[in-house]
Amino acid sequence: MTINIGVIGTGAIGEDHARRITETLAGGQIVAVTDVNMEQARSVVERLGLQAEVYANGLELIAAPNVDAVLVCSWGPTHEEFVLAAIAAGKYVFCEKPLAVTAEGCLNIVKAEVAAGKRLVQVGFMRRYDKGYQQLKQSIDNNDIGAPLMLHCAHRNPTVPDRYVTSMAIVDTAIHELDALRWLLDDDYKTMQVVYPRRTKNAFEHLADPQILLIETLKGVRIDLEIFVNCQYGYDIQCSVVGEEGIANLPEPQSLLMRKGAKLYNDVLMDWKDRFIESYDIELQDFIRGCEKDAIGGPSSWDGYAAAVAADAAVTAQESGQVEPVVMVDRPAFYN
Amino acid sequence: MTINIGVIGTGAIGEDHARRITETLAGGQIVAVTDVNMEQARSVVERLGLQAEVYANGLELIAAPNVDAVLVCSWGPTHEEFVLAAIAAGKYVFCEKPLAVTAEGCLNIVKAEVAAGKRLVQVGFMRRYDKGYQQLKQSIDNNDIGAPLMLHCAHRNPTVPDRYVTSMAIVDTAIHELDALRWLLDDDYKTMQVVYPRRTKNAFEHLADPQILLIETLKGVRIDLEIFVNCQYGYDIQCSVVGEEGIANLPEPQSLLMRKGAKLYNDVLMDWKDRFIESYDIELQDFIRGCEKDAIGGPSSWDGYAAAVAADAAVTAQESGQVEPVVMVDRPAFYN
Amino acid sequence: MTINIGVIGTGAIGEDHARRITETLAGGQIVAVTDVNMEQARSVVERLGLQAEVYANGLELIAAPNVDAVLVCSWGPTHEEFVLAAIAAGKYVFCEKPLAVTAEGCLNIVKAEVAAGKRLVQVGFMRRYDKGYQQLKQSIDNNDIGAPLMLHCAHRNPTVPDRYVTSMAIVDTAIHELDALRWLLDDDYKTMQVVYPRRTKNAFEHLADPQILLIETLKGVRIDLEIFVNCQYGYDIQCSVVGEEGIANLPEPQSLLMRKGAKLYNDVLMDWKDRFIESYDIELQDFIRGCEKDAIGGPSSWDGYAAAVAADAAVTAQESGQVEPVVMVDRPAFYN
Amino acid sequence: MTINIGVIGTGAIGEDHARRITETLAGGQIVAVTDVNMEQARSVVERLGLQAEVYANGLELIAAPNVDAVLVCSWGPTHEEFVLAAIAAGKYVFCEKPLAVTAEGCLNIVKAEVAAGKRLVQVGFMRRYDKGYQQLKQSIDNNDIGAPLMLHCAHRNPTVPDRYVTSMAIVDTAIHELDALRWLLDDDYKTMQVVYPRRTKNAFEHLADPQILLIETLKGVRIDLEIFVNCQYGYDIQCSVVGEEGIANLPEPQSLLMRKGAKLYNDVLMDWKDRFIESYDIELQDFIRGCEKDAIGGPSSWDGYAAAVAADAAVTAQESGQVEPVVMVDRPAFYN
Repeated sequence: MTINIGVIGTGAIGEDHARRITETLAGGQIVAVTDVNMEQARSVVERLGLQAEVYANGLELIAAPNVDAVLVCSWGPTHEEFVLAAIAAGKYVFCEKPLAVTAEGCLNIVKAEVAAGKRLVQVGFMRRYDKGYQQLKQSIDNNDIGAPLMLHCAHRNPTVPDRYVTSMAIVDTAIHELDALRWLLDDDYKTMQVVYPRRTKNAFEHLADPQILLIETLKGVRIDLEIFVNCQYGYDIQCSVVGEEGIANLPEPQSLLMRKGAKLYNDVLMDWKDRFIESYDIELQDFIRGCEKDAIGGPSSWDGYAAAVAADAAVTAQESGQVEPVVMVDRPAFYN
Repeated sequence: MTINIGVIGTGAIGEDHARRITETLAGGQIVAVTDVNMEQARSVVERLGLQAEVYANGLELIAAPNVDAVLVCSWGPTHEEFVLAAIAAGKYVFCEKPLAVTAEGCLNIVKAEVAAGKRLVQVGFMRRYDKGYQQLKQSIDNNDIGAPLMLHCAHRNPTVPDRYVTSMAIVDTAIHELDALRWLLDDDYKTMQVVYPRRTKNAFEHLADPQILLIETLKGVRIDLEIFVNCQYGYDIQCSVVGEEGIANLPEPQSLLMRKGAKLYNDVLMDWKDRFIESYDIELQDFIRGCEKDAIGGPSSWDGYAAAVAADAAVTAQESGQVEPVVMVDRPAFYN
Repeated sequence: MTINIGVIGTGAIGEDHARRITETLAGGQIVAVTDVNMEQARSVVERLGLQAEVYANGLELIAAPNVDAVLVCSWGPTHEEFVLAAIAAGKYVFCEKPLAVTAEGCLNIVKAEVAAGKRLVQVGFMRRYDKGYQQLKQSIDNNDIGAPLMLHCAHRNPTVPDRYVTSMAIVDTAIHELDALRWLLDDDYKTMQVVYPRRTKNAFEHLADPQILLIETLKGVRIDLEIFVNCQYGYDIQCSVVGEEGIANLPEPQSLLMRKGAKLYNDVLMDWKDRFIESYDIELQDFIRGCEKDAIGGPSSWDGYAAAVAADAAVTAQESGQVEPVVMVDRPAFYN
Repeated sequence: MTINIGVIGTGAIGEDHARRITETLAGGQIVAVTDVNMEQARSVVERLGLQAEVYANGLELIAAPNVDAVLVCSWGPTHEEFVLAAIAAGKYVFCEKPLAVTAEGCLNIVKAEVAAGKRLVQVGFMRRYDKGYQQLKQSIDNNDIGAPLMLHCAHRNPTVPDRYVTSMAIVDTAIHELDALRWLLDDDYKTMQVVYPRRTKNAFEHLADPQILLIETLKGVRIDLEIFVNCQYGYDIQCSVVGEEGIANLPEPQSLLMRKGAKLYNDVLMDWKDRFIESYDIELQDFIRGCEKDAIGGPSSWDGYAAAVAADAAVTAQESGQVEPVVMVDRPAFYN
C-alpha cells in the first residue's frame, strides 16, 4: 500500500520533504503539489522527477480524490485554513510548525479534530524523533534517574540575521524546547519567567541576547533554558535532566575525536540544518506509517496548542519581567 | 521506478533485508524469495505481507523474468554459484559475506564480472556505510591529518560461544576490518603477522584469545588490530588513524552521558547487532539506487577477493607465527 | 627563614593543617597549639611529633613572642575574637571559614585591618587554589571566551545528615561558590533569588532539596547555581562560564577512563574531602610565602565580608521567595 | 629533622631540584653544590639564596661531613662514579636518569649497594610518581580489570631537534616507558622488536620516525608502544591496559573543556616539561622522607639496571629487525 501525498508549499522545507518521500522513505509517493509561486511548484516536480499534478491552490489539492494525505509547508499564517480543510475532508495532514499562528487558531484545529472523532493531524516538531532525545526520554521513562527535578537546557546559534528580534527567541527558537520538554517530562507548564543577562557585543542592538527562560512545570520541575543566538562558536543544543538518583544528558552529535594542533577535540556543528536532519526522515516515515495503519501518532494538535500557549506566556514574560502563568483550556480526553 | 528484488536465503539476515526493503527503504520491493527450507520462506512472505512468489531454488529465482536484482543471503558455500548465475543472467546481485568461501572462488566471480563488462555485484561489507567510518574516511581524504602512518584498532566482543575456534578470529571477526581498512586507506596489504598475548581465563580452552594481528600495507602503514572476543565488558570497535599532522578516532556509538552511582558514564553496547544496524539500511538503499541508475557502487567483487586473500594470509600467520606475505593477482583495470 | 606558626583549634582541620605544614610544605613549623580540649591539643603534638608548646587559650598563643603567624581553626563563633587579637598583635593570621559568623563581625575585622595599615589576614576559601578554578580564572582573564555573560553552576553532595537544614544550603554549601564566583568574575553581586524545584524523596522532610540560587552581578552576569545535597550519585562541582565568544568549563577531577561492565566511565568522587585536598596544601603554602615576603595574598577580610553579606541576602531570599538586593558598604581603597 | 643535601651538577635539572627542595618541599635543605662550571654553581647559590658551600667536585661534596644525601644531576657519563662514591660513603643518593650509561655500569652499582647491605640509591624515574600512573597502578593492583593481557601505549612529541637520531627513540624517549611499564605490571621483559611504519615527512631525513616497539613480558603480556617524536600536535603520553575484565586508561592531563570556534575541546600540552612537573616534587619529597626514615623507596638501582638492559635489547632490535631477547642477571634477593 502506497500513501498518495500532496504537498502545499514547495519552498525549502516542502521540497525537502517531497525529496525524502521520493528518494529515502518507504510507503509514500508525491502525487500533488501547489505553491503560491506556481512556477516554483512546477520546477520541483521537474527537479525531483515526480509524477505529480500541480494544483492552483491548497484547497483544490486537498480536495483531489487521489490525495490520501497532505503536507502543509506553506507560510505560517495559511496553516490553520489548510489543516482545517484537510480535517473537513477527512484526510491526514502533516503540518509544519506552527500549527497556527495563534493559540486560538490551534484550539480551532483541536476542536475540529475532536469533532472529526479521530487523529488526523501530526505537527512537525521533529526533535521528538531525534535519536538523542529518544534515548533521553527512554531513560526517564525507565526510571534510570528517578523522578526529574530540574532541567538545565541551552539553545545556541552561532549568529542570527538582522531581522531577528527579541520575541523570536521564544517563537522561533525556544519553541522547539517548549514542545520537546513537555513531551520529555510528560508534564505541562505552570509559569514562565525571562531574565536578561548582560548583552553580548555580538548581537545587533535591537536584540536582547542572550536570554534565560525560567520555567516551572505542574509537577514542580524547574527548567532553565539559555537562549543564546549569537554565541559564535556553534549550533549547540544541550539538555541535562537532573533526577532524584542521577543525571542524564542529551548526547552530543556524533563526530570524530581528533588530536591535532594542540587540541583534543570534536567538531561542533555550525549549521542548525545538520543537527536534526535525520529526525525529519524519521518523523515523516512515522507519518506515512500512521496513514497506512490509520493510527496517526507523534505531536498532536493538542501539542501544537500547548506550545502556542507556552510561547504566548513566555513572550508576555519577556515584556513584563514577571513570572507569568501558563493557562490552557482543559485537555480533551481524546488526547490522553 | 521500483526495483524488483528476489531474496535467496530467508534466514535471519535474509528476512531482515526483506523487511527493510519493504518497510524502511525507498525504491525496491520483494517479488521473489527462496530458501532451502521452503516452509521458512513461505512464513517470511506471510509475516512481512509480501507480494512475492516462493521459488524452489536460487537458480529458478534468478531466472525469473520479473526479478531485477538478487540478494544472496544463503549459506556461505552456496554464494559463489548464485552470484555467478546472477552475473550470467545479467542481473544485479547483492551478496552477503563471504563473496565465496575461498579466494579462488572470489576470483572466479571477479573474472565473470569483468567478462560481463559492467559492475553487477555488491558485497555486504556494511561497515563502509557506518556513519562513523564514513566520517573517518572523509577526514583522511580531506587530508585533515596528513598521510596515515599507523592504525591502532580493536575488535572486541563480550563473549563467544564454545564453537568459536582460533581461526574464526580472522575469518569471522577480523574480516570486517580486513575489508574496511583497505577501503579507509585506499591501500592494500603487504604482510600479516599474528602474536598471542597471555590468554584470558575467560575463553574456552581451545581458543587463543586475545590475538593481535600486525599488518603492513603497500604504502608502509602499520596496523595493529587487537582481536579480543571474550573481553567481557562490551562489543567495542576502535579505530585510531595516526597521520603526519594529527590523529582521527572512530566515534563511539551515540549514547546518553550519565552521572549515576559514583560514575560519569556512557553505556557500551553488549550486542554486535546494535552496532552497525543503521549501516544495513544505508548499504541496501545504496544497492537499490545503484540498480536504478545502472551504476552499482560499494564493496566490489574485487574487494571480496582482496578480503579473502588477506584472511588466508592471516590464518597462515596464525599457524606459522611468522610474517606472511599477502599475494594477490593483478587488479583488473575494470575495478580502478 | 622559617615561619613559626601557632594553631588555635586542633580538631580535624586544625590537625590536618599542622600535619601539612610539618610534613608537606616548605618554610613553616608549628611552635604553638591550643584547643578548648587541652588533651586533644596535646595528643596532636604527640601524634605529629611537634616541637610545640601547648597554650591554655588562643589569646595566650597569639601573645607568645615566638609565634609569627596564627591559624584560626577553632569553632566559628570564636573566629572574630582571635582574628582581631592577631591583628592587634600585628601578626599574620590564616582564618578558616567563616571569617566571622555575621557580616558585622567581618566588617569589624576589615576595619581593624585597614586601621593596622597592612594585609594581615587570609581567609580559608581554598577553592581559589584549586587547579581547575585557577585554569578557569586564567582563561577568563586571558579573554579566551570574551566577556562572561552567564554561569551555570552546580554544587552536589551524595547525602547530608539529619541536622542539615535548609539555610545550610547557603551558609555551609553555596558559601564556597559565593566566594569563588566573585573572584572568578572580578565582580560583585547585585541580587539573589532562590527557587525550589520539586523536592527529592531522598532528603529528610525538614529540608528543601534541591534549591536553585539565581544571582545577578553588578556587571549583569546571570548565575544559576543548583544546590543539591542529596543527589546520591557523587560529590560533584560544576561551573560553566558562558562568554561572548565561547564557553569554559571547570575540569572534572582527574581519574582513569575505564571500560568495564558495559560502561565507558570515570569514577565520580563520593567524599567532598577528596575534591579540594590539594588546594589546602597550596593555600597554606601561599600563606607561608606571604608571611615570608610580608605580602599576604589570597582571600582577604574584605572577601570574607563580601561572602557573608551575599550569604545573608541569599538566606533572606530563601525565606521571602523574592529577588533580594545584596548591599555592601563601600570597599576600602586598601583592598583594591 | 632536616636532611642536608648536596647537589652535583647545577644545570637545568639540578637547579630545579635545588629550588623545589628550598621552596616547595618539606624536610630538606641544600647545604652543598658543585658543577663542572663553578661559576654556574655559585650563581645558583646566589639565585636561590642558599646557605650552601660550593665544592670543587662531586667527590669532595660527597665526602663533606654535613652532607646527608646527594643528588646526582651531572652529565650522564659521570653518574656511575658519583653514585658508587656515595654508596661507599654510606650516603643516600638520588640519581637522575641514566643510573649509568651502560647496563654493566648499572650492575656495578647494584653490586655495590647489595654489598653495602641497605638501599641507598633512588633513580629519577619520575613517571612512577605521576598521579595518573599511580591511579593506573592502583587499579591494576586492585584487580579492577583482572590480569593485564595487553598494553597499548604511545609516546609522542610535537617535534625533536636535528641532533635527535633513531636510537634516541629508545634511550631518551621510550626509556621512560621501559621503566614505568615494568613497575606498572610488576613484570619483566622477555623480548623486544621494532617495526618501522611509513616515515613522516615532518622528520629530519636521518631519523626513522615513527617507530613501534613491540614487547613481550615474562608473564606473556604484549605491549605495543608507538614512539612518534614529530607528531606535530602535542606532547601526548597514552597508556591503555587491557585486562581480562576491562580496560583502564591513563588519564589525560587536567584541562578546561572548552566550546569555541566550532570545536568542543581540551588543550593538549605542547611542552614535555609541563606533563610530569608535579611528579618531580613528589619523587623528591619521597626521597627526603626515605632519608628521614632510613627507608629509601622508589625506583632502585635494580630498576636502573633493568631499564638499561631493556634499552640495549630494543636498540639491538632497531638494528636487526628481529625479535631480540632481554637477558638480565638474576635479581638479588635484596631487591624483592
